[in-house]
Amino acid sequence: MKYSVSNGLQIVTRSIRTSLGSEQSQDFVIEEQAIAFVYNGISHAVMMATPVDLADFALGFSLSEGIINYKNDLLDLEIEENELGVELNITISNRHFNVLKQKRRTLAGNSGCGLCGLESLQQISNKQQTSLATTPLMNFSIIETALNKFRDKQILNIQAGGVHAAAFCDIKTGNILLIREDVGRHNALDKLIGAIQNNESIPQSGFIISSSRASYEMVDKTITAGVNHLVTISAPTSKAIELAKKHHLNLIGFAREDRQVIYNESENHISL
Amino acid sequence: MKYSVSNGLQIVTRSIRTSLGSEQSQDFVIEEQAIAFVYNGISHAVMMATPVDLADFALGFSLSEGIINYKNDLLDLEIEENELGVELNITISNRHFNVLKQKRRTLAGNSGCGLCGLESLQQISNKQQTSLATTPLMNFSIIETALNKFRDKQILNIQAGGVHAAAFCDIKTGNILLIREDVGRHNALDKLIGAIQNNESIPQSGFIISSSRASYEMVDKTITAGVNHLVTISAPTSKAIELAKKHHLNLIGFAREDRQVIYNESENHISL
Repeated sequence: MKYSVSNGLQIVTRSIRTSLGSEQSQDFVIEEQAIAFVYNGISHAVMMATPVDLADFALGFSLSEGIINYKNDLLDLEIEENELGVELNITISNRHFNVLKQKRRTLAGNSGCGLCGLESLQQISNKQQTSLATTPLMNFSIIETALNKFRDKQILNIQAGGVHAAAFCDIKTGNILLIREDVGRHNALDKLIGAIQNNESIPQSGFIISSSRASYEMVDKTITAGVNHLVTISAPTSKAIELAKKHHLNLIGFAREDRQVIYNESENHISL
Repeated sequence: MKYSVSNGLQIVTRSIRTSLGSEQSQDFVIEEQAIAFVYNGISHAVMMATPVDLADFALGFSLSEGIINYKNDLLDLEIEENELGVELNITISNRHFNVLKQKRRTLAGNSGCGLCGLESLQQISNKQQTSLATTPLMNFSIIETALNKFRDKQILNIQAGGVHAAAFCDIKTGNILLIREDVGRHNALDKLIGAIQNNESIPQSGFIISSSRASYEMVDKTITAGVNHLVTISAPTSKAIELAKKHHLNLIGFAREDRQVIYNESENHISL
Protein backbone atom coordinates (compact mmCIF):
# COMPACT_ATOMS: atom_id res chain seq x y z
CA MET A 1 0.00 0.00 0.00
CA LYS A 2 1.17 3.52 -0.76
CA TYR A 3 1.32 5.67 2.35
CA SER A 4 1.42 8.98 0.50
CA VAL A 5 -1.40 9.92 -1.86
CA SER A 6 0.77 12.55 -3.62
CA ASN A 7 4.28 13.98 -3.45
CA GLY A 8 2.88 16.76 -1.23
CA LEU A 9 3.24 19.52 -3.81
CA GLN A 10 1.04 21.16 -6.42
CA ILE A 11 1.98 23.50 -9.25
CA VAL A 12 0.18 26.84 -9.44
CA THR A 13 0.37 29.86 -11.70
CA ARG A 14 0.90 33.08 -9.80
CA SER A 15 2.05 36.65 -10.47
CA ILE A 16 5.06 38.19 -8.82
CA ARG A 17 4.44 41.91 -8.40
CA THR A 18 6.99 44.59 -7.56
CA SER A 19 6.80 48.37 -7.79
CA LEU A 20 7.90 47.99 -11.44
CA GLY A 21 5.09 45.69 -12.59
CA SER A 22 4.07 42.05 -12.45
CA GLU A 23 5.02 38.84 -14.18
CA GLN A 24 3.25 35.49 -14.31
CA SER A 25 5.08 32.24 -13.67
CA GLN A 26 4.63 28.81 -12.13
CA ASP A 27 5.65 27.63 -8.70
CA PHE A 28 5.12 24.81 -6.22
CA VAL A 29 2.73 25.18 -3.31
CA ILE A 30 2.35 22.74 -0.44
CA GLU A 31 -0.63 20.42 -0.72
CA GLU A 32 -3.26 20.63 1.99
CA GLN A 33 -6.08 18.11 2.17
CA ALA A 34 -8.80 17.15 4.60
CA ILE A 35 -7.70 13.95 6.31
CA ALA A 36 -10.22 11.99 8.38
CA PHE A 37 -9.22 9.61 11.16
CA VAL A 38 -11.73 6.77 11.23
CA TYR A 39 -11.40 4.21 14.04
CA ASN A 40 -13.15 0.86 13.60
CA GLY A 41 -15.57 2.48 11.14
CA ILE A 42 -16.38 5.54 13.30
CA SER A 43 -15.15 8.93 12.05
CA HIS A 44 -13.30 10.60 14.92
CA ALA A 45 -11.55 13.76 13.69
CA VAL A 46 -10.68 15.64 10.53
CA MET A 47 -7.51 17.62 10.06
CA MET A 48 -6.10 19.70 7.24
CA ALA A 49 -2.72 18.13 6.50
CA THR A 50 -0.26 17.29 3.76
CA PRO A 51 -1.13 13.81 2.44
CA VAL A 52 2.32 12.22 2.67
CA ASP A 53 3.66 9.70 5.23
CA LEU A 54 0.14 8.77 6.27
CA ALA A 55 1.06 5.51 8.00
CA ASP A 56 3.34 7.50 10.30
CA PHE A 57 0.58 10.10 10.79
CA ALA A 58 -2.02 7.46 11.66
CA LEU A 59 0.25 5.83 14.23
CA GLY A 60 1.70 9.05 15.66
CA PHE A 61 -1.68 10.80 16.09
CA SER A 62 -3.19 7.69 17.69
CA LEU A 63 -0.28 7.52 20.17
CA SER A 64 -0.19 11.28 20.87
CA GLU A 65 -3.92 11.35 21.57
CA GLY A 66 -3.67 8.33 23.86
CA ILE A 67 -6.13 6.38 21.69
CA ILE A 68 -3.58 3.58 21.70
CA ASN A 69 -0.49 3.06 23.86
CA TYR A 70 1.82 0.96 21.70
CA LYS A 71 2.54 0.51 18.02
CA ASN A 72 1.02 -2.97 18.05
CA ASP A 73 -2.30 -1.63 19.31
CA LEU A 74 -2.84 -0.35 15.76
CA LEU A 75 -4.00 -3.54 14.06
CA ASP A 76 -4.66 -2.36 10.51
CA LEU A 77 -4.63 0.74 8.33
CA GLU A 78 -6.39 1.31 5.01
CA ILE A 79 -6.01 4.60 3.18
CA GLU A 80 -8.84 5.72 0.92
CA GLU A 81 -8.81 8.83 -1.21
CA ASN A 82 -12.01 10.31 -2.57
CA GLU A 83 -13.15 13.65 -3.95
CA LEU A 84 -13.60 15.07 -0.43
CA GLY A 85 -10.20 14.13 0.95
CA VAL A 86 -8.40 11.17 2.47
CA GLU A 87 -9.77 8.67 4.98
CA LEU A 88 -7.40 6.84 7.28
CA ASN A 89 -9.37 3.73 8.20
CA ILE A 90 -7.67 2.51 11.34
CA THR A 91 -8.47 -0.72 13.14
CA ILE A 92 -7.69 -0.88 16.83
CA SER A 93 -8.41 -3.64 19.35
CA ASN A 94 -11.88 -3.87 20.89
CA ARG A 95 -10.39 -2.92 24.23
CA HIS A 96 -9.02 0.40 22.94
CA PHE A 97 -12.10 1.06 20.81
CA ASN A 98 -14.36 0.61 23.83
CA VAL A 99 -12.28 3.15 25.79
CA LEU A 100 -12.53 5.59 22.87
CA LYS A 101 -16.32 5.05 22.55
CA GLN A 102 -16.73 5.53 26.30
CA LYS A 103 -14.74 8.78 26.18
CA ARG A 104 -16.87 10.02 23.28
CA ARG A 105 -20.11 9.08 25.02
CA THR A 106 -19.31 11.01 28.18
CA LEU A 107 -18.83 14.21 26.22
CA ALA A 108 -21.85 16.32 25.40
CA GLY A 109 -21.12 16.53 21.72
CA ASN A 110 -18.95 18.04 19.09
CA SER A 111 -16.05 20.24 20.07
CA GLY A 112 -12.99 22.22 19.66
CA CYS A 113 -9.76 23.00 18.08
CA GLY A 114 -6.43 23.72 19.63
CA LEU A 115 -6.71 20.95 22.13
CA CYS A 116 -7.85 17.96 20.18
CA GLY A 117 -11.36 17.14 21.23
CA LEU A 118 -11.38 18.81 24.60
CA GLU A 119 -14.41 20.91 25.31
CA SER A 120 -14.07 21.97 28.92
CA LEU A 121 -11.27 23.20 31.14
CA GLN A 122 -11.90 20.28 33.49
CA GLN A 123 -10.94 17.79 30.79
CA ILE A 124 -7.50 19.34 30.37
CA SER A 125 -6.68 19.13 34.04
CA ASN A 126 -7.87 15.49 34.09
CA LYS A 127 -5.36 14.49 31.45
CA GLN A 128 -2.82 12.02 32.80
CA GLN A 129 0.79 12.54 31.83
CA THR A 130 3.75 10.40 32.89
CA SER A 131 6.85 12.43 33.73
CA LEU A 132 10.10 11.75 31.92
CA ALA A 133 13.17 10.50 33.73
CA THR A 134 15.58 13.41 34.20
CA THR A 135 18.29 13.37 31.54
CA PRO A 136 21.30 15.65 31.12
CA LEU A 137 21.17 18.16 28.29
CA MET A 138 23.30 17.45 25.21
CA ASN A 139 26.38 19.57 24.56
CA PHE A 140 26.05 22.74 22.50
CA SER A 141 27.83 21.18 19.53
CA ILE A 142 25.39 18.23 19.22
CA ILE A 143 22.42 20.55 18.74
CA GLU A 144 24.55 22.82 16.53
CA THR A 145 25.33 19.86 14.24
CA ALA A 146 21.65 18.90 14.00
CA LEU A 147 20.57 22.48 13.24
CA ASN A 148 23.19 22.75 10.52
CA LYS A 149 21.69 19.73 8.77
CA PHE A 150 18.02 20.43 9.49
CA ARG A 151 17.26 23.07 6.86
CA ASP A 152 18.67 21.14 3.90
CA LYS A 153 16.58 18.09 4.78
CA GLN A 154 13.28 19.99 4.54
CA ILE A 155 12.60 18.96 0.96
CA LEU A 156 8.99 20.19 0.74
CA ASN A 157 9.77 23.47 2.48
CA ILE A 158 12.66 24.20 0.12
CA GLN A 159 10.32 23.80 -2.85
CA ALA A 160 7.12 25.41 -1.54
CA GLY A 161 7.90 27.45 1.60
CA GLY A 162 5.67 27.75 4.65
CA VAL A 163 6.02 24.06 5.53
CA HIS A 164 6.78 22.78 9.03
CA ALA A 165 9.20 19.97 9.85
CA ALA A 166 10.04 17.81 12.83
CA ALA A 167 13.24 15.76 12.98
CA PHE A 168 14.52 13.02 15.28
CA CYS A 169 18.26 13.36 15.93
CA ASP A 170 20.98 11.13 17.30
CA ILE A 171 21.81 12.21 20.83
CA LYS A 172 25.49 11.27 20.47
CA THR A 173 26.27 12.80 17.06
CA GLY A 174 23.48 15.25 16.23
CA ASN A 175 22.85 13.42 12.96
CA ILE A 176 19.31 13.60 11.67
CA LEU A 177 17.81 10.11 11.78
CA LEU A 178 14.29 10.90 10.55
CA ILE A 179 12.45 13.98 9.32
CA ARG A 180 8.78 14.51 8.52
CA GLU A 181 7.10 17.53 6.95
CA ASP A 182 3.56 18.88 6.94
CA VAL A 183 1.68 22.11 6.46
CA GLY A 184 0.86 21.92 10.19
CA ARG A 185 3.44 21.79 12.97
CA HIS A 186 1.37 19.37 15.09
CA ASN A 187 0.97 17.06 12.13
CA ALA A 188 4.70 17.10 11.34
CA LEU A 189 5.40 16.13 14.96
CA ASP A 190 2.73 13.41 14.99
CA LYS A 191 4.16 11.99 11.74
CA LEU A 192 7.65 11.98 13.27
CA ILE A 193 6.42 10.25 16.44
CA GLY A 194 4.78 7.58 14.26
CA ALA A 195 7.93 7.28 12.13
CA ILE A 196 10.13 6.70 15.19
CA GLN A 197 7.92 3.71 16.10
CA ASN A 198 7.66 2.50 12.50
CA ASN A 199 11.46 2.45 12.05
CA GLU A 200 12.72 -0.21 14.39
CA SER A 201 16.31 0.09 13.23
CA ILE A 202 16.86 3.58 14.61
CA PRO A 203 17.93 4.20 18.22
CA GLN A 204 14.95 4.96 20.46
CA SER A 205 16.82 7.63 22.41
CA GLY A 206 17.31 10.95 20.67
CA PHE A 207 16.04 14.48 20.54
CA ILE A 208 13.45 16.30 18.47
CA ILE A 209 13.92 19.51 16.49
CA SER A 210 10.82 21.38 15.33
CA SER A 211 10.75 24.26 12.87
CA SER A 212 7.98 25.93 14.86
CA ARG A 213 7.53 27.52 18.26
CA ALA A 214 7.12 25.38 21.38
CA SER A 215 3.50 25.54 22.45
CA TYR A 216 1.76 23.52 25.17
CA GLU A 217 0.70 20.84 22.71
CA MET A 218 4.14 20.39 21.13
CA VAL A 219 5.61 19.83 24.59
CA ASP A 220 2.73 17.52 25.55
CA LYS A 221 3.20 15.34 22.43
CA THR A 222 6.97 15.12 22.99
CA ILE A 223 6.54 14.01 26.61
CA THR A 224 3.87 11.46 25.62
CA ALA A 225 6.32 10.05 23.06
CA GLY A 226 8.89 9.61 25.85
CA VAL A 227 11.45 11.88 24.20
CA ASN A 228 13.54 13.88 26.69
CA HIS A 229 14.55 16.91 24.63
CA LEU A 230 12.64 19.34 22.40
CA VAL A 231 14.56 21.92 20.38
CA THR A 232 12.47 24.54 18.55
CA ILE A 233 13.50 27.24 16.09
CA SER A 234 11.02 29.77 17.42
CA ALA A 235 9.88 30.93 20.87
CA PRO A 236 8.26 28.87 23.61
CA THR A 237 5.01 29.86 25.32
CA SER A 238 4.44 30.26 29.04
CA LYS A 239 2.43 27.01 29.26
CA ALA A 240 5.03 25.08 27.28
CA ILE A 241 7.74 26.05 29.78
CA GLU A 242 5.46 25.21 32.70
CA LEU A 243 4.68 21.74 31.32
CA ALA A 244 8.32 21.06 30.41
CA LYS A 245 9.38 21.89 33.99
CA LYS A 246 6.65 19.74 35.51
CA HIS A 247 7.60 16.64 33.50
CA HIS A 248 11.39 17.09 33.19
CA LEU A 249 11.57 17.83 29.46
CA ASN A 250 14.71 19.65 28.38
CA LEU A 251 13.33 22.58 26.40
CA ILE A 252 15.49 24.66 24.05
CA GLY A 253 14.02 27.54 22.05
CA PHE A 254 15.20 30.14 19.53
CA ALA A 255 17.70 27.52 18.34
CA ARG A 256 20.14 29.11 15.91
CA GLU A 257 23.38 27.78 14.54
CA ASP A 258 25.41 29.89 16.99
CA ARG A 259 22.99 30.28 19.90
CA GLN A 260 20.53 28.21 21.94
CA VAL A 261 18.15 29.43 24.62
CA ILE A 262 17.54 26.92 27.39
CA TYR A 263 14.14 27.28 29.04
CA ASN A 264 14.26 24.12 31.07
CA GLU A 265 17.14 21.84 31.87
CA SER A 266 16.03 18.83 33.85
CA GLU A 267 18.41 18.38 36.77
CA ASN A 268 20.24 15.08 36.68
CA HIS A 269 19.97 14.08 40.31
CA ILE A 270 22.44 11.36 41.11
CA SER A 271 21.14 9.12 43.84
CA LEU A 272 23.85 8.13 46.29
CA MET B 1 -15.36 44.49 32.66
CA LYS B 2 -11.74 43.87 31.74
CA TYR B 3 -11.44 42.01 28.46
CA SER B 4 -7.84 40.94 28.99
CA VAL B 5 -6.91 38.87 32.01
CA SER B 6 -3.22 39.81 31.69
CA ASN B 7 -0.93 41.86 29.47
CA GLY B 8 -0.20 38.69 27.47
CA LEU B 9 3.37 38.31 28.66
CA GLN B 10 5.19 36.45 31.39
CA ILE B 11 8.75 36.84 32.63
CA VAL B 12 10.96 33.74 32.68
CA THR B 13 14.54 33.00 33.61
CA ARG B 14 16.44 31.24 30.85
CA SER B 15 20.04 30.57 29.82
CA ILE B 16 21.51 31.76 26.57
CA ARG B 17 24.13 29.25 25.45
CA THR B 18 26.77 29.73 22.77
CA SER B 19 29.86 27.72 21.95
CA LEU B 20 31.68 29.84 24.58
CA GLY B 21 29.40 29.07 27.51
CA SER B 22 26.05 30.04 28.94
CA GLU B 23 24.59 32.95 30.88
CA GLN B 24 21.33 33.25 32.78
CA SER B 25 18.99 36.20 32.34
CA GLN B 26 15.32 37.12 32.25
CA ASP B 27 13.09 37.56 29.25
CA PHE B 28 9.46 37.86 28.25
CA VAL B 29 7.54 34.88 26.84
CA ILE B 30 4.07 34.99 25.35
CA GLU B 31 1.32 33.84 27.65
CA GLU B 32 -0.69 30.81 26.60
CA GLN B 33 -3.78 29.74 28.52
CA ALA B 34 -6.63 27.31 28.06
CA ILE B 35 -9.67 29.34 27.05
CA ALA B 36 -13.09 27.70 27.09
CA PHE B 37 -16.02 28.92 24.99
CA VAL B 38 -19.20 28.31 26.96
CA TYR B 39 -22.51 29.08 25.20
CA ASN B 40 -25.61 29.50 27.38
CA GLY B 41 -23.94 27.41 30.08
CA ILE B 42 -22.76 24.58 27.80
CA SER B 43 -19.00 24.21 27.26
CA HIS B 44 -18.38 24.04 23.51
CA ALA B 45 -14.65 24.20 22.81
CA VAL B 46 -11.32 24.86 24.47
CA MET B 47 -8.41 26.57 22.79
CA MET B 48 -4.92 27.46 23.87
CA ALA B 49 -4.67 31.21 23.32
CA THR B 50 -3.22 34.43 24.68
CA PRO B 51 -5.71 35.86 27.18
CA VAL B 52 -5.94 39.40 25.81
CA ASP B 53 -8.74 41.03 23.78
CA LEU B 54 -11.18 38.35 24.86
CA ALA B 55 -14.36 40.26 23.93
CA ASP B 56 -13.05 40.44 20.35
CA PHE B 57 -12.11 36.76 20.51
CA ALA B 58 -15.56 35.72 21.78
CA LEU B 59 -17.33 37.65 19.03
CA GLY B 60 -14.91 36.77 16.22
CA PHE B 61 -14.85 33.03 16.97
CA SER B 62 -18.64 32.92 17.25
CA LEU B 63 -18.97 34.66 13.86
CA SER B 64 -16.22 32.61 12.15
CA GLU B 65 -17.76 29.36 13.31
CA GLY B 66 -21.23 30.44 12.17
CA ILE B 67 -22.61 30.05 15.70
CA ILE B 68 -24.02 33.56 15.29
CA ASN B 69 -24.42 35.70 12.17
CA TYR B 70 -24.30 39.27 13.48
CA LYS B 71 -22.68 41.14 16.33
CA ASN B 72 -26.04 41.67 18.04
CA ASP B 73 -26.66 37.91 18.18
CA LEU B 74 -24.14 37.85 21.02
CA LEU B 75 -26.29 39.02 23.90
CA ASP B 76 -23.86 38.91 26.82
CA LEU B 77 -20.32 37.96 27.74
CA GLU B 78 -18.87 37.20 31.16
CA ILE B 79 -15.20 36.37 31.57
CA GLU B 80 -14.17 34.14 34.45
CA GLU B 81 -10.61 33.20 35.32
CA ASN B 82 -9.86 30.23 37.54
CA GLU B 83 -6.88 28.00 38.25
CA LEU B 84 -7.56 25.90 35.12
CA GLY B 85 -7.81 28.76 32.65
CA VAL B 86 -10.34 31.28 31.38
CA GLU B 87 -14.03 30.72 30.66
CA LEU B 88 -15.80 32.92 28.16
CA ASN B 89 -19.43 32.65 29.23
CA ILE B 90 -21.34 33.75 26.17
CA THR B 91 -25.09 34.22 25.98
CA ILE B 92 -26.70 33.89 22.57
CA SER B 93 -30.38 33.98 21.61
CA ASN B 94 -32.48 30.84 22.04
CA ARG B 95 -32.78 30.59 18.28
CA HIS B 96 -29.02 30.40 17.76
CA PHE B 97 -28.52 28.19 20.80
CA ASN B 98 -31.09 25.71 19.49
CA VAL B 99 -29.25 25.54 16.15
CA LEU B 100 -25.97 24.92 17.99
CA LYS B 101 -27.53 22.23 20.20
CA GLN B 102 -29.07 20.58 17.14
CA LYS B 103 -25.71 20.59 15.35
CA ARG B 104 -24.04 19.06 18.38
CA ARG B 105 -26.73 16.40 18.77
CA THR B 106 -26.42 15.17 15.19
CA LEU B 107 -22.72 14.47 15.67
CA ALA B 108 -21.66 11.19 17.15
CA GLY B 109 -19.45 12.69 19.81
CA ASN B 110 -16.25 14.38 20.56
CA SER B 111 -13.96 15.40 17.75
CA GLY B 112 -11.08 17.01 16.14
CA CYS B 113 -8.62 19.70 15.65
CA GLY B 114 -7.62 21.58 12.56
CA LEU B 115 -11.17 22.04 11.40
CA CYS B 116 -13.05 23.23 14.41
CA GLY B 117 -15.41 20.48 15.46
CA LEU B 118 -15.67 18.63 12.17
CA GLU B 119 -15.35 14.90 12.43
CA SER B 120 -16.07 13.58 8.97
CA LEU B 121 -15.19 14.58 5.42
CA GLN B 122 -18.88 14.89 4.59
CA GLN B 123 -19.31 17.70 7.10
CA ILE B 124 -16.67 19.82 5.37
CA SER B 125 -18.31 19.54 1.98
CA ASN B 126 -21.68 20.40 3.53
CA LYS B 127 -20.38 23.72 4.84
CA GLN B 128 -22.18 26.65 3.22
CA GLN B 129 -20.06 29.60 2.18
CA THR B 130 -21.31 32.79 0.53
CA SER B 131 -19.01 34.04 -2.24
CA LEU B 132 -17.59 37.55 -2.06
CA ALA B 133 -18.42 40.16 -4.67
CA THR B 134 -15.48 40.49 -7.05
CA THR B 135 -13.31 43.48 -6.12
CA PRO B 136 -10.24 44.88 -7.85
CA LEU B 137 -6.90 44.33 -6.16
CA MET B 138 -5.31 47.31 -4.41
CA ASN B 139 -2.22 48.90 -5.92
CA PHE B 140 1.21 47.63 -4.98
CA SER B 141 1.96 50.73 -2.90
CA ILE B 142 -1.10 50.34 -0.64
CA ILE B 143 0.00 46.88 0.49
CA GLU B 144 3.61 48.10 0.69
CA THR B 145 2.57 50.90 3.07
CA ALA B 146 0.66 48.47 5.29
CA LEU B 147 3.55 45.99 5.41
CA ASN B 148 5.96 48.77 6.36
CA LYS B 149 3.82 49.58 9.38
CA PHE B 150 2.81 46.03 10.33
CA ARG B 151 5.94 44.83 12.12
CA ASP B 152 6.26 47.81 14.47
CA LYS B 153 2.66 47.40 15.60
CA GLN B 154 3.19 43.82 16.81
CA ILE B 155 3.83 44.83 20.41
CA LEU B 156 3.71 41.34 21.94
CA ASN B 157 5.81 39.81 19.19
CA ILE B 158 8.51 42.46 19.56
CA GLN B 159 8.79 41.61 23.26
CA ALA B 160 8.39 37.81 23.24
CA GLY B 161 8.82 36.52 19.68
CA GLY B 162 6.85 33.67 18.11
CA VAL B 163 3.56 35.59 18.27
CA HIS B 164 1.12 35.85 15.35
CA ALA B 165 -0.73 38.99 14.34
CA ALA B 166 -3.61 39.92 12.08
CA ALA B 167 -4.26 43.51 11.03
CA PHE B 168 -7.14 45.28 9.29
CA CYS B 169 -5.91 47.95 6.89
CA ASP B 170 -7.45 50.91 5.10
CA ILE B 171 -7.98 50.02 1.46
CA LYS B 172 -7.30 53.59 0.28
CA THR B 173 -4.19 54.43 2.29
CA GLY B 174 -2.74 51.16 3.61
CA ASN B 175 -2.90 52.51 7.15
CA ILE B 176 -3.34 49.92 9.87
CA LEU B 177 -6.73 50.44 11.48
CA LEU B 178 -6.71 47.54 13.95
CA ILE B 179 -4.25 44.84 14.95
CA ARG B 180 -4.67 41.81 17.22
CA GLU B 181 -2.05 39.36 18.44
CA ASP B 182 -2.15 35.81 19.75
CA VAL B 183 0.06 32.78 20.13
CA GLY B 184 -2.14 31.14 17.46
CA ARG B 185 -2.70 32.50 13.96
CA HIS B 186 -6.38 31.45 13.87
CA ASN B 187 -6.98 33.14 17.20
CA ALA B 188 -5.30 36.38 16.07
CA LEU B 189 -7.57 36.40 13.01
CA ASP B 190 -10.70 35.61 15.03
CA LYS B 191 -9.82 38.42 17.47
CA LEU B 192 -9.37 40.81 14.54
CA ILE B 193 -12.70 39.79 12.99
CA GLY B 194 -14.39 40.44 16.34
CA ALA B 195 -12.55 43.75 16.72
CA ILE B 196 -13.75 44.97 13.29
CA GLN B 197 -17.33 44.43 14.44
CA ASN B 198 -16.70 45.86 17.91
CA ASN B 199 -15.24 49.11 16.51
CA GLU B 200 -18.07 50.81 14.73
CA SER B 201 -16.06 53.90 13.89
CA ILE B 202 -13.69 52.18 11.47
CA PRO B 203 -14.53 51.69 7.79
CA GLN B 204 -16.01 48.25 7.12
CA SER B 205 -14.12 47.84 3.85
CA GLY B 206 -10.45 47.06 4.10
CA PHE B 207 -7.95 44.26 3.79
CA ILE B 208 -6.36 41.83 6.21
CA ILE B 209 -2.66 41.14 6.71
CA SER B 210 -1.66 38.02 8.60
CA SER B 211 1.84 37.20 9.86
CA SER B 212 1.30 33.54 9.02
CA ARG B 213 0.83 31.39 5.97
CA ALA B 214 -2.52 31.24 4.18
CA SER B 215 -4.14 27.91 4.97
CA TYR B 216 -7.67 26.75 4.11
CA GLU B 217 -9.04 27.96 7.43
CA MET B 218 -7.47 31.42 7.25
CA VAL B 219 -9.08 31.91 3.83
CA ASP B 220 -12.39 30.48 5.07
CA LYS B 221 -12.52 32.85 8.06
CA THR B 222 -11.67 35.87 5.88
CA ILE B 223 -14.44 35.05 3.39
CA THR B 224 -16.96 34.46 6.22
CA ALA B 225 -16.05 37.89 7.57
CA GLY B 226 -16.86 39.41 4.17
CA VAL B 227 -13.35 40.80 3.67
CA ASN B 228 -12.20 40.77 0.02
CA HIS B 229 -8.41 40.64 0.38
CA LEU B 230 -6.05 38.51 2.44
CA VAL B 231 -2.34 39.32 2.47
CA THR B 232 -0.04 36.83 4.23
CA ILE B 233 3.66 37.02 5.00
CA SER B 234 4.25 33.32 4.37
CA ALA B 235 3.16 30.81 1.69
CA PRO B 236 -0.37 29.76 0.78
CA THR B 237 -1.49 26.12 0.64
CA SER B 238 -3.13 24.39 -2.32
CA LYS B 239 -6.56 24.34 -0.61
CA ALA B 240 -6.28 28.00 0.37
CA ILE B 241 -5.76 29.00 -3.28
CA GLU B 242 -8.63 26.73 -4.40
CA LEU B 243 -11.04 28.25 -1.87
CA ALA B 244 -9.93 31.83 -2.66
CA LYS B 245 -10.59 31.23 -6.37
CA LYS B 246 -13.99 29.67 -5.72
CA HIS B 247 -15.23 32.59 -3.61
CA HIS B 248 -13.42 35.52 -5.29
CA LEU B 249 -11.00 36.36 -2.48
CA ASN B 250 -7.93 38.31 -3.60
CA LEU B 251 -5.08 36.26 -2.14
CA ILE B 252 -1.55 37.64 -1.81
CA GLY B 253 1.24 35.54 -0.30
CA PHE B 254 4.96 35.91 0.52
CA ALA B 255 4.25 39.61 1.07
CA ARG B 256 7.52 41.49 1.47
CA GLU B 257 8.18 45.19 1.45
CA ASP B 258 9.43 45.06 -2.15
CA ARG B 259 7.54 42.06 -3.54
CA GLN B 260 4.04 40.54 -3.46
CA VAL B 261 2.96 37.20 -4.92
CA ILE B 262 -0.60 37.20 -6.21
CA TYR B 263 -2.25 33.77 -6.07
CA ASN B 264 -5.74 34.90 -6.91
CA GLU B 265 -6.97 38.16 -8.29
CA SER B 266 -10.74 38.20 -8.54
CA GLU B 267 -11.68 39.53 -11.97
CA ASN B 268 -13.69 42.72 -11.80
CA HIS B 269 -16.37 41.92 -14.37
CA ILE B 270 -18.12 45.07 -15.46
CA SER B 271 -21.70 44.37 -16.40
CA LEU B 272 -22.81 46.39 -19.44
